Amino acid sequence: MSDLLWPGDDRAGDLFTDAAVLAAMVRAEAAWLAALVRHGVAPAEAADDLAGLIGAGDVSLVAAGAESGGNPLIPLLKLLRSRLESRNAAAARWLHKGLTSQDVVDTGLVLCLRDVTARVRDDLALQIAALVRLADGHRDTPMPGRTLTQYAVPITFGLKASTWLTGVLDARDRLAVTATLPAQIGGAAGSLAAPAALAGSPIVARELAETTADMLGLPVREPWHTARAPLTGLADALVTCTDAWGRIANDVLVGARPEVHELSEGAVPGRGGSSAMPNKQNPVLSILIRRAALAAPFLAATVHAAAAAAVDERPDGGWHVEWSTLRTLARRTVTAGAQTAELLAGLQVETSWMTANLAAARPGIDAEQRAITPGAAHGEPYPGTIEQIIDAALARAGSTPR
Amino acid sequence: MSDLLWPGDDRAGDLFTDAAVLAAMVRAEAAWLAALVRHGVAPAEAADDLAGLIGAGDVSLVAAGAESGGNPLIPLLKLLRSRLESRNAAAARWLHKGLTSQDVVDTGLVLCLRDVTARVRDDLALQIAALVRLADGHRDTPMPGRTLTQYAVPITFGLKASTWLTGVLDARDRLAVTATLPAQIGGAAGSLAAPAALAGSPIVARELAETTADMLGLPVREPWHTARAPLTGLADALVTCTDAWGRIANDVLVGARPEVHELSEGAVPGRGGSSAMPNKQNPVLSILIRRAALAAPFLAATVHAAAAAAVDERPDGGWHVEWSTLRTLARRTVTAGAQTAELLAGLQVETSWMTANLAAARPGIDAEQRAITPGAAHGEPYPGTIEQIIDAALARAGSTPR
Amino acid sequence: MSDLLWPGDDRAGDLFTDAAVLAAMVRAEAAWLAALVRHGVAPAEAADDLAGLIGAGDVSLVAAGAESGGNPLIPLLKLLRSRLESRNAAAARWLHKGLTSQDVVDTGLVLCLRDVTARVRDDLALQIAALVRLADGHRDTPMPGRTLTQYAVPITFGLKASTWLTGVLDARDRLAVTATLPAQIGGAAGSLAAPAALAGSPIVARELAETTADMLGLPVREPWHTARAPLTGLADALVTCTDAWGRIANDVLVGARPEVHELSEGAVPGRGGSSAMPNKQNPVLSILIRRAALAAPFLAATVHAAAAAAVDERPDGGWHVEWSTLRTLARRTVTAGAQTAELLAGLQVETSWMTANLAAARPGIDAEQRAITPGAAHGEPYPGTIEQIIDAALARAGSTPR
Amino acid sequence: MSDLLWPGDDRAGDLFTDAAVLAAMVRAEAAWLAALVRHGVAPAEAADDLAGLIGAGDVSLVAAGAESGGNPLIPLLKLLRSRLESRNAAAARWLHKGLTSQDVVDTGLVLCLRDVTARVRDDLALQIAALVRLADGHRDTPMPGRTLTQYAVPITFGLKASTWLTGVLDARDRLAVTATLPAQIGGAAGSLAAPAALAGSPIVARELAETTADMLGLPVREPWHTARAPLTGLADALVTCTDAWGRIANDVLVGARPEVHELSEGAVPGRGGSSAMPNKQNPVLSILIRRAALAAPFLAATVHAAAAAAVDERPDGGWHVEWSTLRTLARRTVTAGAQTAELLAGLQVETSWMTANLAAARPGIDAEQRAITPGAAHGEPYPGTIEQIIDAALARAGSTPR
Repeated sequence: MSDLLWPGDDRAGDLFTDAAVLAAMVRAEAAWLAALVRHGVAPAEAADDLAGLIGAGDVSLVAAGAESGGNPLIPLLKLLRSRLESRNAAAARWLHKGLTSQDVVDTGLVLCLRDVTARVRDDLALQIAALVRLADGHRDTPMPGRTLTQYAVPITFGLKASTWLTGVLDARDRLAVTATLPAQIGGAAGSLAAPAALAGSPIVARELAETTADMLGLPVREPWHTARAPLTGLADALVTCTDAWGRIANDVLVGARPEVHELSEGAVPGRGGSSAMPNKQNPVLSILIRRAALAAPFLAATVHAAAAAAVDERPDGGWHVEWSTLRTLARRTVTAGAQTAELLAGLQVETSWMTANLAAARPGIDAEQRAITPGAAHGEPYPGTIEQIIDAALARAGSTPR
Repeated sequence: MSDLLWPGDDRAGDLFTDAAVLAAMVRAEAAWLAALVRHGVAPAEAADDLAGLIGAGDVSLVAAGAESGGNPLIPLLKLLRSRLESRNAAAARWLHKGLTSQDVVDTGLVLCLRDVTARVRDDLALQIAALVRLADGHRDTPMPGRTLTQYAVPITFGLKASTWLTGVLDARDRLAVTATLPAQIGGAAGSLAAPAALAGSPIVARELAETTADMLGLPVREPWHTARAPLTGLADALVTCTDAWGRIANDVLVGARPEVHELSEGAVPGRGGSSAMPNKQNPVLSILIRRAALAAPFLAATVHAAAAAAVDERPDGGWHVEWSTLRTLARRTVTAGAQTAELLAGLQVETSWMTANLAAARPGIDAEQRAITPGAAHGEPYPGTIEQIIDAALARAGSTPR
Repeated sequence: MSDLLWPGDDRAGDLFTDAAVLAAMVRAEAAWLAALVRHGVAPAEAADDLAGLIGAGDVSLVAAGAESGGNPLIPLLKLLRSRLESRNAAAARWLHKGLTSQDVVDTGLVLCLRDVTARVRDDLALQIAALVRLADGHRDTPMPGRTLTQYAVPITFGLKASTWLTGVLDARDRLAVTATLPAQIGGAAGSLAAPAALAGSPIVARELAETTADMLGLPVREPWHTARAPLTGLADALVTCTDAWGRIANDVLVGARPEVHELSEGAVPGRGGSSAMPNKQNPVLSILIRRAALAAPFLAATVHAAAAAAVDERPDGGWHVEWSTLRTLARRTVTAGAQTAELLAGLQVETSWMTANLAAARPGIDAEQRAITPGAAHGEPYPGTIEQIIDAALARAGSTPR
Repeated sequence: MSDLLWPGDDRAGDLFTDAAVLAAMVRAEAAWLAALVRHGVAPAEAADDLAGLIGAGDVSLVAAGAESGGNPLIPLLKLLRSRLESRNAAAARWLHKGLTSQDVVDTGLVLCLRDVTARVRDDLALQIAALVRLADGHRDTPMPGRTLTQYAVPITFGLKASTWLTGVLDARDRLAVTATLPAQIGGAAGSLAAPAALAGSPIVARELAETTADMLGLPVREPWHTARAPLTGLADALVTCTDAWGRIANDVLVGARPEVHELSEGAVPGRGGSSAMPNKQNPVLSILIRRAALAAPFLAATVHAAAAAAVDERPDGGWHVEWSTLRTLARRTVTAGAQTAELLAGLQVETSWMTANLAAARPGIDAEQRAITPGAAHGEPYPGTIEQIIDAALARAGSTPR
């Protein structure tokens, strides 16, 4: 999978590709089948891990069949059954028994999203480490503070980095909610009617759901076919990440302007060139991160609009709009997260330009200080609580998510 | 304040009106002034609670002056100072000293948002109580389950109500994050430079911020001028509410269709009439709730786009777009929350129509059951784990927010 | 009407205020009543221009009554009838006869939108005039061209201004579609059933609609209760305006950075100051314009989402979400349009800084030229077709909308 | 290319795939190279149609290289040059000379969008033909008119179909603007500096642009690198299509509810089934069309947000966000358009249920008629101007786009 029109998309690798989705749905079916066997609902000979039945090569076939039933599980199931038949007829018979399409599609999406968030968390950790270094190492690197594009008062680059860090830590904490992304096991209309009938007991039906979720390493939750806060919460967490990264990229893009010259992206051979202008060294990572930050709010909002469109015991379109939207949001977040980690690790801080810009900003930039402390000497420090703010951010960085 | 074009807006009353915003900004200034005095930074005679200086009648004047400086605090401050001068010249001199516009505007917004969320929480509690009654009381009220608009398997109305309840509980839990909405005290570029200079100590500067936040009953936080997750988190929580309510309204709107006839809004004299058709009894509350759910995702997304546009130590437009957007989102959420509470309290459940529709749906709707349990008698119950699902939702309703 | 939280909103004055909406709905009712009389459907004594019956003071009352019926026309009609009764009982009896709420609400919105677009067109004309001056006057003012934040090749400021002009001309042309904003006359379910029954003839019913539209100066159109392209087209045109203005503001905000210093907003006493920093001269207009450009795409998209939610012969929420959304979008567009006109009229072009920045950008910025024309002298012009591009834009500016 | 998570995506076939984008960019380069030769700027031996150099198999390689320069043209160009070198060294030397990446990427996008809109127009024509049949054939098929989900007054199904038709015709007319989608030929900073230097004349530089556009069958336009109304206009047109189709789907979804039973999708073997419920016949096309209508407003709005983020002579992220967004919007529109054409061609109109529902709606649904014409007999027609409305829509359907 590649997206020629979203440069850097290959950073997301195999995460949430069509093949990954297929595999995740098969895992969900396998876990359910195993639960049926383990609880004695299905006979022992129905045990089958479904391994090796479906591969990336089946994507086109399943995709082509997805429209008829309105979702990709139906053709996948047909394919699975047909291939399983000769290997294990009992498994073929028990496969999917008691479930509904939405159970498998939703659980498959959740599995893909879990992999995505694990990757995003890794990149957040790298970013945090880089930001801790920048904030700590530049506590005393003076530069002009700017508000509304104009010089405000002097700050240090460490303060700026600690503000970036705060945004990233907020994103990290928000992403912690995704640990609660649950499996979906509800049956046709969310009552677990078929599982209970199969098991002869509602208690066992619930145990089936719990076992299935356990096998997948997911929390269990009452059926949420039309209560979609788990997915909107995830989408909100992802856009909170891109917000934080976009905010950093914006500062780098200002700092990389040749007239400002305070920041630049780490040099990588071949990166940042132009098709026509040999002089160019474009801040490509920041540009691509900013791009993601521009788009993500619309994608997360689509997931909310989908949630708000839920109706009946399964929605007539509101459900369907979530899948590809979540995938796009997820892969773009992964890409931007990796780009931000690399950006921060390689960021060049041009302290001499910061000093020079600050000097050029004087005496105007000292006006507030002079109003507060009329006798302040020219260039006298105006540090405020920068030390304490940085310390607090660093402490939080070392903390576990709140 | 009224919005003729958002019927029901008056339910939000004085919450987050222009006058409320003015008052909240004055409260923020008063708390800071009091902190300056308490910590001995300002002299005792500068103490002034700023009461009675600014009223709703000043809205137009302040609004008209807001463009020049780009925010409403600048003209408000001018007005405050001019009125304070004759009453307490020392207070007029110390007013706002050490702060920046954004400190006061942000804290003012947060105070308004806190009032909004308190109101939303009240309405969520009413909704939860009503939903607990509906879910518990209709555990065994049979009706057709519907997926993708078509009959699926039989359910009970209690199950449906418990699914609605799950959505509302998710919204309640999400809204708990808003307890962390912090005061904003950062000074011109987020370094608390002026407060520290005034106090002669960064430690006292931080104490000033803490005291101010305490007085306002708000948590303190390192300056977040350009790290806007507190506001995006709030916006996400509000849209999670409207998602849950829109989902309920969608079901009521289907149920209120005359051919379905399973649900209707409580009769209120004069409500639901038409300008031309005497026969009409429109499900007005549901329509207006659905309206809010359609709009809210776009508003919350705007807050994210604003956060992602942050740059420098105060953004050049990204900050300014938040204010009115948050207000609109907040008031619409309050209105929809009150409407949903009333809708649920008065909801008419037409059990006879549910029974009749279920009967008409047979035998098709029993097809899954018959496939699972070939010998099932006609109309034999197919309850699944409905009891347990409802019990779990009820238990969660009784719980405190997770 | 003022919006404290959208500084500059007062520039939109009385346009599309609650009072303006009330008046517009009364105008729509008056035109219909007059048409009924003119075509002999209503008796001559039913003639009444409805003047003086409703004023701005009625807004609160009508707003408070709007929720019951789900729209503001129902309480307005009640009020109108009660006041008309004593003055002209026949008029009171014939008032609104044959219409439905949506006819009057939609036509009222259209009347307000027409006033808005007229105002926007006026400001577009001012902008175009200013841009023509800038493009023409600075044909030969050299400056660095920048792509992806970095120096590209030399351009002139006239080229940049002509690109801004192109965007504004595109917006002007797009706005021409709004000339087709039609009256809405359809009756209860869009069949003109009641008018035809009253008139005894479908032909006369259509003449009633035409006469009403004529009186209001609006085009007539088959009922469009659930075919909302007229409104989405208008919303698209408005956001095309804010796109063009935001794009200009972005350049001014870069140019106004002190390190770049190429552009600044015209000085206006008291504008651009800070609450704490006496040194500040913030580019307030550009900031506020950019703010509008950030928000508008979400508002226009809401109108599309509303259109896509249409169902039945009048939608259950999709209709209701349009009203306030369109008003907000409209007023913000007016405000931003006026700000942009003022920004461009007063824009300060710092040619010496442009020259200096270009000199500092050398020799890198000449790299492409040197690659194409190896023997080019240092600083040799590289004008391309700037003359022709500017001429083309100027010619288009003089043209009537395509 | 397939999107497993957007069932039906394969209907868009090869349109705007990565391979199609590559091919379109090569076409743009080839046209420019040919123009250079034709105008004598490049020598005759540089002529090369670039055929056979790049294929679908190159997508991954180009995609992997796209991040470095921030766009896919840079690695494509490198690949093209390396393969061209041995076949035609002069062509390799002249390839892309005078252009900038954005020229080729934008023109490539426009070529893909043109193919998309041609396909959408074909499907609109099919829809229009089907709607003409439905509107004309069901002029007198009585059914209940419904507003706000409740019975309003009697209408005919022909009237409803003519309203659907109006929406589709509006979309068709809006799409006509896309005929003006221009080629992009501007050079590094939009001044055609390099082409003019190469040609030794601005006049020839403009002729190069015209010739290139001609060869591609595209209109020429002054450089629009940062004036993006051509693309926002296209996006607006596409979402106007999905609005119209979503509105139709909504009605079919209501009509397909078993209690209403007035409409159903044409039966296709294997379509609409369930993974667990043998009784199911889901209105799959309508569900998937509605899905597209839910998502499209967010995608089109992203294109506006991108346009509003333009800055400098090429934007730092605002440009990059357009590409994949436009592709997604375009392919989803194609898919939904094909689905809508098929839906309408096969739509089953259950006139007996319409009659029965109307009978059941009486006498309430006759209340307005009875108020207007007190002596109307039970069930007396109430046709209004339905004939004329349908005639007008049919006439417009036969017309060419206005």
